[in-house]
Amino acid sequence: MGKKKKEFVEEITPMEQDFAKWYTDVIKKTDLVDYSPVKGFMAIKPYGFAIWENLQAYVDKRFKDTGHKNCYFPLLIPESLLKKEAEHVEGFAPEVAWVTHGGDEELAERLAIRPTSETIICEMYSRWLNSYRDLPFLYNQWCNVVRWEKSTRPFLRTSEFLWQEGHTLHETEEEAQEETLQMLNIYKETAEELLAMPVIVGIKSEKEKFAGAHATYTMEALMHDGKALQAGTSHNLAQHFTKAFDISYLSREGKQAYPYHTSWGISTRLIGGIIMVHGDNRGLVLPPGVAPTQVAIVPIATHKEGVLDKASEIFEQLKDLARVELDDRENYSPGWKFNEWEMKGAPLRIEIGPRDIENKQVMVVRRDTLEKTPVPIGELEARIPELLKEINTNLFEKAKKMRDENTFYAKSLEELKEIMDTTQGFVKANWCVDPQCEETIKKETGATMRCIPFEQEDLGGDCPFCGKEGKSVTYFAKAY
Amino acid sequence: MGKKKKEFVEEITPMEQDFAKWYTDVIKKTDLVDYSPVKGFMAIKPYGFAIWENLQAYVDKRFKDTGHKNCYFPLLIPESLLKKEAEHVEGFAPEVAWVTHGGDEELAERLAIRPTSETIICEMYSRWLNSYRDLPFLYNQWCNVVRWEKSTRPFLRTSEFLWQEGHTLHETEEEAQEETLQMLNIYKETAEELLAMPVIVGIKSEKEKFAGAHATYTMEALMHDGKALQAGTSHNLAQHFTKAFDISYLSREGKQAYPYHTSWGISTRLIGGIIMVHGDNRGLVLPPGVAPTQVAIVPIATHKEGVLDKASEIFEQLKDLARVELDDRENYSPGWKFNEWEMKGAPLRIEIGPRDIENKQVMVVRRDTLEKTPVPIGELEARIPELLKEINTNLFEKAKKMRDENTFYAKSLEELKEIMDTTQGFVKANWCVDPQCEETIKKETGATMRCIPFEQEDLGGDCPFCGKEGKSVTYFAKAY
Repeated sequence: MGKKKKEFVEEITPMEQDFAKWYTDVIKKTDLVDYSPVKGFMAIKPYGFAIWENLQAYVDKRFKDTGHKNCYFPLLIPESLLKKEAEHVEGFAPEVAWVTHGGDEELAERLAIRPTSETIICEMYSRWLNSYRDLPFLYNQWCNVVRWEKSTRPFLRTSEFLWQEGHTLHETEEEAQEETLQMLNIYKETAEELLAMPVIVGIKSEKEKFAGAHATYTMEALMHDGKALQAGTSHNLAQHFTKAFDISYLSREGKQAYPYHTSWGISTRLIGGIIMVHGDNRGLVLPPGVAPTQVAIVPIATHKEGVLDKASEIFEQLKDLARVELDDRENYSPGWKFNEWEMKGAPLRIEIGPRDIENKQVMVVRRDTLEKTPVPIGELEARIPELLKEINTNLFEKAKKMRDENTFYAKSLEELKEIMDTTQGFVKANWCVDPQCEETIKKETGATMRCIPFEQEDLGGDCPFCGKEGKSVTYFAKAY
Repeated sequence: MGKKKKEFVEEITPMEQDFAKWYTDVIKKTDLVDYSPVKGFMAIKPYGFAIWENLQAYVDKRFKDTGHKNCYFPLLIPESLLKKEAEHVEGFAPEVAWVTHGGDEELAERLAIRPTSETIICEMYSRWLNSYRDLPFLYNQWCNVVRWEKSTRPFLRTSEFLWQEGHTLHETEEEAQEETLQMLNIYKETAEELLAMPVIVGIKSEKEKFAGAHATYTMEALMHDGKALQAGTSHNLAQHFTKAFDISYLSREGKQAYPYHTSWGISTRLIGGIIMVHGDNRGLVLPPGVAPTQVAIVPIATHKEGVLDKASEIFEQLKDLARVELDDRENYSPGWKFNEWEMKGAPLRIEIGPRDIENKQVMVVRRDTLEKTPVPIGELEARIPELLKEINTNLFEKAKKMRDENTFYAKSLEELKEIMDTTQGFVKANWCVDPQCEETIKKETGATMRCIPFEQEDLGGDCPFCGKEGKSVTYFAKAY
């Protein structure tokens, strides 16, 4: 029966058995990423990087549509600059990679590889801002950053990652706050609409906020294993940095004034989120918005006349409507290809063989539901974009259901601890907002406050963890 | 007479007076770039970065259309890896920035910030390549690199720069050579078609080739001051790295084999080239292909009814045909805006005032020729794209003429020296290709061989510099 075809042998550890192992199996076997010889540094392979490129294109357009422009700032930051904002250096110094030599010479001052760029950007802004007429500054940068992490996991926590960091300056406190929330909202829409990943948006506690921020806003997603992922943050930095870096300007009133400042970022970490929100024991389930291949066309019995031609025709028919790939590799059986595309999470697979051609149809298989439906070839152009939308909606609804089913209330510290020791998930409580109580919760249960959501419900009552007055309904979880 | 408008006060040093100062004035006053507190590191401002983004979008598409995919590899490279290819480390070690500490801890092994990524990429490729079925590897990465430079100039030579580096593996020597030349050709077309920058393409000498390469191909452009700029290189690395890194695979014949390897790159240096090939004493002259604003619309007498409305209408009419900006800033006079857009090199300016509206026309001003022509409003949609093409052609022709007028022959070392000491420019000679002669030329005249062009002419005769047998017509120049 022809040549021997390569058999499908990849196996993924079931997530119920070992979630961490499942994650590692998925990212390695689907060729998203690989470990590198430098501990904690990853090499992002083409399939993984294409997800990032699709995400980047969407987000970059959102930024530009809201008036932001891209810049590029130096990778290295002199130690003295990093130290200018006291809380900031305290937060970041322990994770800084230091450059001490250039060529054969020892440097007079150590240089930090940027862990984030507030300090170097503020230094430049202080030179660029003169008058209120120059404001607002609405700038963003796409770059790599380095944070020396002890324990790492590809995408989720790595010593180097790719991200964007927006840094804006404004005349008024109100404008800065508006910007902070606008960008958080763009992140929320990116997560929910592009990535089909439901998120809770709200504010961080004093303890959990960004080092140097006035207030940090966050979006938090729940993973399959009941752990939370901080998926994006937007900081209102008030005048903390602009005063420390003496960024002043001549105001409308002819006085020297300090602008108000925001920063906001999302990173390759989101790819980890996509994997852990949508993936299953067969592998990846990619949301159509970022899937490198949205539709994989697999011809069957390619030795039969007309099959490859028809498959190519369908490829041509669809290639401007979606990201389509014609899998005409030799030496791989159709079954092997079905399995591989399933594992790689392509939202749709089109199977086409001699009998289908006779019937003027193809089989369309959804990755999210594994449903297999015949579709007349003439209807593909209309049906494929619809199906991709349906898949996106279904992924979002499924993830939301999963999250809602794993969101609990706790009436005591013991209850919280029990949940964290068993199912995990989000736990809501009418919290006292006291840092001392927060410390105890973390120590006793391993959970941290994830956010105080904008949408508050009326839970009433005292803080279930310490008995002080309950102030804000807050989400707690163990987090990545 | 209304509010007092801001006057135009920027002044650019004439290039004939001081070319280096002219360059610095232009990049600073047009907001392309700024110096940073770290010596040799630059901050690329939005106007400069937008040029890079336009270039990037074009080139990235060319790469993808030829089957390449993007990846991302670690920023840091262990010293031991960098040392695996002997010539390579010798070439790059003197310019490496070394990371020695992570947080508070001293690292067991120093890590180099990538000066280029052959070594780390080969290390990863050695893990990824198994069978001839996996070949070719056609991967590219967009990233920052660091080379510790003693003397720097923004865009042209900086200790950090942005670039792309393609790294491919092939089964055969022929395929690798084809790839090397294909990518050089894409660079040439990028330079000539997108950037209107004529280039000489050819091969480097043994002395000038990339550290570790079998052969380096280059494109060389001539700047206004008669110096050459190496604008892009493509290397055939043969098996130098694949053997050093033990990248082997099972061949079609069932044997262990080493693949053939190429790498190729262009960088933000090209922006320096654009400035120095097209710019004039009024400032930048940007080729339409990468100009952030291709058409600046400046309304005149904006207090008169209908002017701003009409200007907005024209903006709407053109905005999908070109990168258009409506300059409706208050507090700046039209004259100031004319000067600014001229200085910033926008290819076209549209001036529109009450009288123009009456006449149903606008004034269109070309940056390259400073010609001012009335164009009926109804014809703008057809005329603007045509004009942008005409400008591109004119810029290319002008630059080519300039280059040809500054390309000389030398009949002796003295003649070469005299040219290098006066006008500078390209000098062609039927060279002996001897490294010793090359050394002498550099020492005596400051010129280096730029390339042996693919297109050879018949000059005949002995090497004019040393009298040995003339072998190949070669371009010499002082270079950036």
